[in-house]
Amino acid sequence: MSMLFVNEERLLKSLEELSLVGNSSDKGVTRFALTPGDLQARQWLQARASQYDLRSHFDAVGNLFIYAQDAQEQPPVIVGSHVDTVPNGGRYDGALGVLAGLESLIRLQETQTPLSRPVWLAVWTEEEGSRFSGGLIGSRAIIGELGKEELKLTDADGISLAEALCSWGLNPDDLPQAARKPGQIHAYVELHIEQGAKLDVAKEQIGVVTGIVGIRRYNVSVKGQANHAGTTPMNLRRDALVAASLMVQAVEQIVRDSGHLEAVGTVGKLQVYPGGVNVVPGQVDFTVEIRDIKMEVMDELVAKVRTRLQEIAAERHVELTWEAAPAVTPSLLDESVQQTIAQVANELGYSWRYMPSGAGHDAQHLARICPTGMIFVPSKDGISHSPAEYTADEDCVRGTNVLLNTIVRLAK
Amino acid sequence: MSMLFVNEERLLKSLEELSLVGNSSDKGVTRFALTPGDLQARQWLQARASQYDLRSHFDAVGNLFIYAQDAQEQPPVIVGSHVDTVPNGGRYDGALGVLAGLESLIRLQETQTPLSRPVWLAVWTEEEGSRFSGGLIGSRAIIGELGKEELKLTDADGISLAEALCSWGLNPDDLPQAARKPGQIHAYVELHIEQGAKLDVAKEQIGVVTGIVGIRRYNVSVKGQANHAGTTPMNLRRDALVAASLMVQAVEQIVRDSGHLEAVGTVGKLQVYPGGVNVVPGQVDFTVEIRDIKMEVMDELVAKVRTRLQEIAAERHVELTWEAAPAVTPSLLDESVQQTIAQVANELGYSWRYMPSGAGHDAQHLARICPTGMIFVPSKDGISHSPAEYTADEDCVRGTNVLLNTIVRLAK
Repeated sequence: MSMLFVNEERLLKSLEELSLVGNSSDKGVTRFALTPGDLQARQWLQARASQYDLRSHFDAVGNLFIYAQDAQEQPPVIVGSHVDTVPNGGRYDGALGVLAGLESLIRLQETQTPLSRPVWLAVWTEEEGSRFSGGLIGSRAIIGELGKEELKLTDADGISLAEALCSWGLNPDDLPQAARKPGQIHAYVELHIEQGAKLDVAKEQIGVVTGIVGIRRYNVSVKGQANHAGTTPMNLRRDALVAASLMVQAVEQIVRDSGHLEAVGTVGKLQVYPGGVNVVPGQVDFTVEIRDIKMEVMDELVAKVRTRLQEIAAERHVELTWEAAPAVTPSLLDESVQQTIAQVANELGYSWRYMPSGAGHDAQHLARICPTGMIFVPSKDGISHSPAEYTADEDCVRGTNVLLNTIVRLAK
Repeated sequence: MSMLFVNEERLLKSLEELSLVGNSSDKGVTRFALTPGDLQARQWLQARASQYDLRSHFDAVGNLFIYAQDAQEQPPVIVGSHVDTVPNGGRYDGALGVLAGLESLIRLQETQTPLSRPVWLAVWTEEEGSRFSGGLIGSRAIIGELGKEELKLTDADGISLAEALCSWGLNPDDLPQAARKPGQIHAYVELHIEQGAKLDVAKEQIGVVTGIVGIRRYNVSVKGQANHAGTTPMNLRRDALVAASLMVQAVEQIVRDSGHLEAVGTVGKLQVYPGGVNVVPGQVDFTVEIRDIKMEVMDELVAKVRTRLQEIAAERHVELTWEAAPAVTPSLLDESVQQTIAQVANELGYSWRYMPSGAGHDAQHLARICPTGMIFVPSKDGISHSPAEYTADEDCVRGTNVLLNTIVRLAK
């Protein structure tokens, strides 16, 4: 099968240019959702699209769609990602997927490639959750799961999501019309940087994403006895931090030793009370997070961690409180789309591997209403959400070539 | 030798009464140094003293001295403690020593006990350091070690120590006159609650304090690599918190296993950066505190801890920074005064033990210019600096009886 190739120079130049549009930071890229900066980025995309005879429109939640003028009646193949960022983020997270999608649409126009289905580019609203917590808001709206309650979510200045939408001239009451049902989207594909170091360490070029991991989160509290650090002998202490430090290690060790190579377990947040240099810690609160692509693996790890934490609490004479925080269900991606991506990568002569996504993406929502796939390209040293985020030019190009040819096969 | 006994009812009633004087808290006792509440407490003591024909005066740093009218020319035996407190503290810390001293002076008057030396009660200024950091200010002034720089120390409202002294009508320029030289004080004895649980657990009545422990403090920083908790596999992490948690345990274990039963080691303060539930910790800062009565024990423990922390840092591929914070030298108390206290306790039929003080006290300063001793009484469950601080009435009485008869022998 003959392959299409993107215009490398145009793609790379657009990455450079978009990183400056609406960016409110001098230490990386900062474009919070539904701010003037976000709007500037979308208007820049619209202007660019119109240069190539592509049309665009916004839906009620601010998702921007870009597409060719013909064949709009068929369920489209959608490619997409986001242009909102974390504070002082990188220039690739989200932006690469959007610009790769735009470049693909332009190449399809330029090459007049005959397709039987329309191809749309979606620029989803508030993926990161930097302004309205939770994130993935645009993709939740499109699967009809953004509730009225969530419109009341407020940002740090007390502005609600509904108010932010209105400030863009959108009408939150039209939200139901934004939703799509199964069958209304033919397939969804998203190119994204890995945000981890697996590809970089293995020197592989393309990740064919098998699914997006589930997340289990727990708030743990360890209560011992705060005491004067000078007058309380070691054998009379119930030091909450010593107990918690055993627990932090247990989380790491259980996950490491489980044999589940893709599973991760993290204590990311930990606070010590009262926190005085001369006071034996009386209480430590910390979070436990477990991620894996398989429900049963998460179940197994959570049970092991919980049991071990209870044992440590008993050994150390401290009280343990274990409270579940909101969880995320794993999303398995479509096997046929995975195979198409893998085949395209093969034919292009790129090295590739199957891998789960450890981070959340809009694709996990789309996967619930249509066959969905994701393509990863390497992140240097796995760094993301940082100005140091970097994906080599040739990796951006390879990922976009895979995206473009995957679209052709899905829309054929 | 015939023994004197305190007026139990008067002593216990005064403890009750003083806990209400100048107290600005409804959750314990709060009397910060050099505040109106502290002044009220001192004026209450002056009024009580004058009822029993005792005189009093303030020195330039706000130390209040109470004494009988005769024989002022000889170097006095001083007993003392403090009436300033921590926020929401207990009613025994400091106050018991002051009221036991006052009761002793009163009993000496009432019994017309012939003594060859004067006995003074000292109410030291700012022992706790709740208002002006560092604490032990009055006793530092009396040994001539409160420098002009320290007069510039400010409280949370920006008021300097010098200004606070002026607000009491005192003149900080007179500070040099407050200082005493070796030979100018015959002996110093302080009764205090243990603030630990050794006596309570052992069901012993009196602690004869052998010295006040030295303190070594270190600020430790562990730098790993902050990373996305979802996308960073376990084997590619440099998790600063997992490394730090091994270090927290090393501190405990090295001190516990050292065979030095009185030594303590504590990590009381620990902060995790960036501290997100979904971020592998990139940096952890924590404090290490080691206390013992012997310099060489502290040296040994600090060296072992530091070596082990360096090993852990190397094993875990994290960077370690180890910085010494201001230290406190151990103060050994006078052996002859210790023997006098022990003998008095024996003759009174009280059970007693030798023990170091794990907390700092004004006595550690006095020990540098005169023979000094300290008497401990039990703290229930070792609790202190809390409204739950409690010493049984009979223990307060026993401690005061020991103080009174120790004074008689020292001033004889």
